[in-house]
Amino acid sequence: MRAAPECYPCFLNQAIKTARRTTSDPRRLKALLDEVSAALRSHPFDVAPPVISEDIYRIIARTTGAADPYRDLKRRCIRQALRIYPEVKKWVAAHPDPLRAAVQAAIAGNVIDFGVAGEFDLAADVSALLDRPLAVDHYADFRKCLARAGRVLYLGDNAGETVFDRILIEALDRPVDYAVRSAPIINDALAEDAESSGLSRAARIVESGCSTPGTVLSHSSPAFRRIFRSADLIISKGQGNFEALAESGRSLFFLLKVKCEVVARLARAPLGSLVLISQKRRKAKPAARP
Amino acid sequence: MRAAPECYPCFLNQAIKTARRTTSDPRRLKALLDEVSAALRSHPFDVAPPVISEDIYRIIARTTGAADPYRDLKRRCIRQALRIYPEVKKWVAAHPDPLRAAVQAAIAGNVIDFGVAGEFDLAADVSALLDRPLAVDHYADFRKCLARAGRVLYLGDNAGETVFDRILIEALDRPVDYAVRSAPIINDALAEDAESSGLSRAARIVESGCSTPGTVLSHSSPAFRRIFRSADLIISKGQGNFEALAESGRSLFFLLKVKCEVVARLARAPLGSLVLISQKRRKAKPAARP
Repeated sequence: MRAAPECYPCFLNQAIKTARRTTSDPRRLKALLDEVSAALRSHPFDVAPPVISEDIYRIIARTTGAADPYRDLKRRCIRQALRIYPEVKKWVAAHPDPLRAAVQAAIAGNVIDFGVAGEFDLAADVSALLDRPLAVDHYADFRKCLARAGRVLYLGDNAGETVFDRILIEALDRPVDYAVRSAPIINDALAEDAESSGLSRAARIVESGCSTPGTVLSHSSPAFRRIFRSADLIISKGQGNFEALAESGRSLFFLLKVKCEVVARLARAPLGSLVLISQKRRKAKPAARP
Repeated sequence: MRAAPECYPCFLNQAIKTARRTTSDPRRLKALLDEVSAALRSHPFDVAPPVISEDIYRIIARTTGAADPYRDLKRRCIRQALRIYPEVKKWVAAHPDPLRAAVQAAIAGNVIDFGVAGEFDLAADVSALLDRPLAVDHYADFRKCLARAGRVLYLGDNAGETVFDRILIEALDRPVDYAVRSAPIINDALAEDAESSGLSRAARIVESGCSTPGTVLSHSSPAFRRIFRSADLIISKGQGNFEALAESGRSLFFLLKVKCEVVARLARAPLGSLVLISQKRRKAKPAARP
């Protein structure tokens, strides 16, 4: 999807929120906003929001001197998620359809976010979301496609959410490649985060090659693109990956919590809702007759 | 109060929301945002937000060609408010303390807003707010000061809210000057709006001389400043007037719904709460000894 006009102030809000982790000086914050808005002016907004985000967070890192401002928070999120992992695993095992329950747990884990979304209380919010009906629910199709699939590619999103991804991956009963970002961006999961979430016991951890907060294929490595092309089924977690891959014409399943109005419009689901969207490969148009 | 870094993206959000009333073309909206952000870069943010707002809304008016984009909405708000006026009057008259009830009705009317705040349902929202306790409640002081006061100056805010201001003014039982903006800005009340709200039956309508969405004294007319200085009691309605006059050292009463986190911090009240704040004249510091 392309960035919308509404993304413009949202990027500035994210810049303030992130910079406030290291400074509260209004003049330094104003100077940062001036620089970010100059960068936004130079962007034509004909790309997916994660492409612009990468640029914005690079400016924040440079001006605040903090290359990975969410590092401690990411670790804390993973520890918190690991504490409730046994309980959620038990809930999944006791469910009449454990795969469906694991899907729900993975989507609920997307409540974790320090970018677009605001505050959250991990244990309380995940519990509340386990029973929430999905606003778009293509589970039947997901189940059918999974039954036919060999290798699965799972596009990770945030650190901590990784623990809930592990729950779904353990329920898939398939060989899985779990993709993480290659450099710090917001609170997105890196290889070390996937590792400390216990994901290497359930999947092969692979780097996407990009540091955009969403899997932008043109920014990813050739090795990753091969994995992407050869996967039988792709699970895309979170809003950043949705922004990068919705309307891409690729066949995949989006699992996310809808965190802004721009994505809500495209996902055709209300703000705050949980969705499992099946996106089908766009068929090539027949060649025009000569 | 001075503009905060958080006001920066808020101005851009307001620009999009207002411009979308006349266009949905993403390129035109992006061009407007580029121009607004250039204006924000040139502002040092050492002034009250309404001063910057005036500049932003002037850019929106110029680029969209709509000098008063909220004109129809203002009229509709006044009509809606006049429809529920008799019911609220009855509720005030039946209250054990009608003055207190009228204060509450006036603050509840501040739910009307097309600037910072989002959507609202006038009749439902006002009814819900009539019983909501005030998060800051200096009513006892207000009542005492009113008992001693001769002439009252009432600083109006939004069109439609004007009808609820009329309810409080009718309960004051004092000669009242009702101040309106001198040129269209967002949905702020002009003289014609006060007139069609029936305010001329209860007060003398005066223009502040400014078109900032908040009474910025340095932007107001000399005639208005004389009224301001000679008033025995000043009632300031809404967030715009609060932004313009909080920390001004002037003695006045602020009646408003808290619509953003920046104002929430200064008002020491939660976002969304209703407040009646007594601000006392700041005493001049004794001269330092030679």
